[in-house]
Amino acid sequence: VTCYRLTLAYDGTSFEGWQSQARVRPVRTVQGVLEAALGRLVEGERVAVVAAGRTDAGVHALGQVVSFELPRDLTPDLLARALNGLLPADVRVVGGARAPLGWSARRSAVSKLYRYVMDTGAVQMPTRRLFAAHVPGPLTEEPMQAAAALYLGRHDFASVASAGGSVKTSVRVVSRSELRIAPTASEEGGPAVVYEVEADGFLRKMVRSLVGGLIAAGRGVVAVEGLREALDARDRRGWPAPAPARGLTLVRVDYPPAEEPPE
Amino acid sequence: VTCYRLTLAYDGTSFEGWQSQARVRPVRTVQGVLEAALGRLVEGERVAVVAAGRTDAGVHALGQVVSFELPRDLTPDLLARALNGLLPADVRVVGGARAPLGWSARRSAVSKLYRYVMDTGAVQMPTRRLFAAHVPGPLTEEPMQAAAALYLGRHDFASVASAGGSVKTSVRVVSRSELRIAPTASEEGGPAVVYEVEADGFLRKMVRSLVGGLIAAGRGVVAVEGLREALDARDRRGWPAPAPARGLTLVRVDYPPAEEPPE
Repeated sequence: VTCYRLTLAYDGTSFEGWQSQARVRPVRTVQGVLEAALGRLVEGERVAVVAAGRTDAGVHALGQVVSFELPRDLTPDLLARALNGLLPADVRVVGGARAPLGWSARRSAVSKLYRYVMDTGAVQMPTRRLFAAHVPGPLTEEPMQAAAALYLGRHDFASVASAGGSVKTSVRVVSRSELRIAPTASEEGGPAVVYEVEADGFLRKMVRSLVGGLIAAGRGVVAVEGLREALDARDRRGWPAPAPARGLTLVRVDYPPAEEPPE
Repeated sequence: VTCYRLTLAYDGTSFEGWQSQARVRPVRTVQGVLEAALGRLVEGERVAVVAAGRTDAGVHALGQVVSFELPRDLTPDLLARALNGLLPADVRVVGGARAPLGWSARRSAVSKLYRYVMDTGAVQMPTRRLFAAHVPGPLTEEPMQAAAALYLGRHDFASVASAGGSVKTSVRVVSRSELRIAPTASEEGGPAVVYEVEADGFLRKMVRSLVGGLIAAGRGVVAVEGLREALDARDRRGWPAPAPARGLTLVRVDYPPAEEPPE
């Protein structure tokens, strides 16, 4: 038995997320297509795959990390090529390595970086409609920057977590929370706001709720002081609605240096 | 009767191009969905739309310009909003103005800017597979830059035009031909090469053929001197194959300053 760690990129548009919730009919999930492809490599044996971040329906990834064990030993490069020959074009293996037996992409992760893109033009650009949420202006930058700064550091994020998670604590440490106003030239696809957030972990729908707070602040629907109170209240009923999934991408997952595979 | 000029953006993925060639069964074209939406605004009357650039199947646009006449007079803003309410999400009206009667978006155009994106990573990134062609390396930059420089200026471009065009001359003036190597960080989606070309006009499949020449030069399949000879020969059989449509976007169309609508 060999343990593998793979890096995946996917276009989440046509997936019902990383894993299926309990449902009556089967749905298309990233975990499902990956496990099906792995099953074909090991003569139909069931391979259970664990992902660092369980992305929701419509959420994309550039650097999702997964782990699993195979009864066969293949070089990581051969495994990646074989999988890319079996996977649909909206999921690709972009990197791979062997890992110690029992290694878990989820348990070992020390931080994750997410990016959220808002198309802030009056009209939603068709060429990015699957990778950016349409958030027409006017948005005021200063309160958005203040809200982004509010998220930094250690907080109990219960206010921005959806029900249904199975975590023991909702305290997380946000190490990066940056808002960038992108070019407005129509040649570049029109105006956009890009938000990047990195933390030691994220609760269910946490990034989309944080972005919902940024948008509410930018539109003047809520003052930054109101967001602070809503965060401190640890009650999700007082928090603005989460932003749409399509704008969100899991960019990168980091592990302890000792666990990084050699280049 | 009022003449209008609209700027359109579209995701060309699900269109058989701007206009249908003569075919047995009807196909989905940008012209078709736009004319259908306009027809609904004028009680089913047929509205004929002319586009500055007749983009091929799979080619995208950020700034396509079209012209047509309507029996009704609407403000350009109201017309744009009404159309965006009737059009599918993969086409949007992003600007509009009234134009002098008889004005033609095609005849009046003085230059067009196209952008071509190549995903040069070993594995095609799923998140940009509809807007970039997969051109795995190694590509050598220097001969690609030399080929891009070769295209500049006035040439008879017969070697890079597909058959079937109806133009009188294949001489065009390329005023800009720029190649840019984009970030290689996986966080940005991996390595890419972006090519921008501007000219007073383009022949059928001309941009994709020019890009085919860049790729052949970058791979060392043909020397830049060989491309020069193939261009001078004015015979398309000696030119490398055109690059795929999905990497191509019509960015902008320019008109004489006197014809530009006031801001």
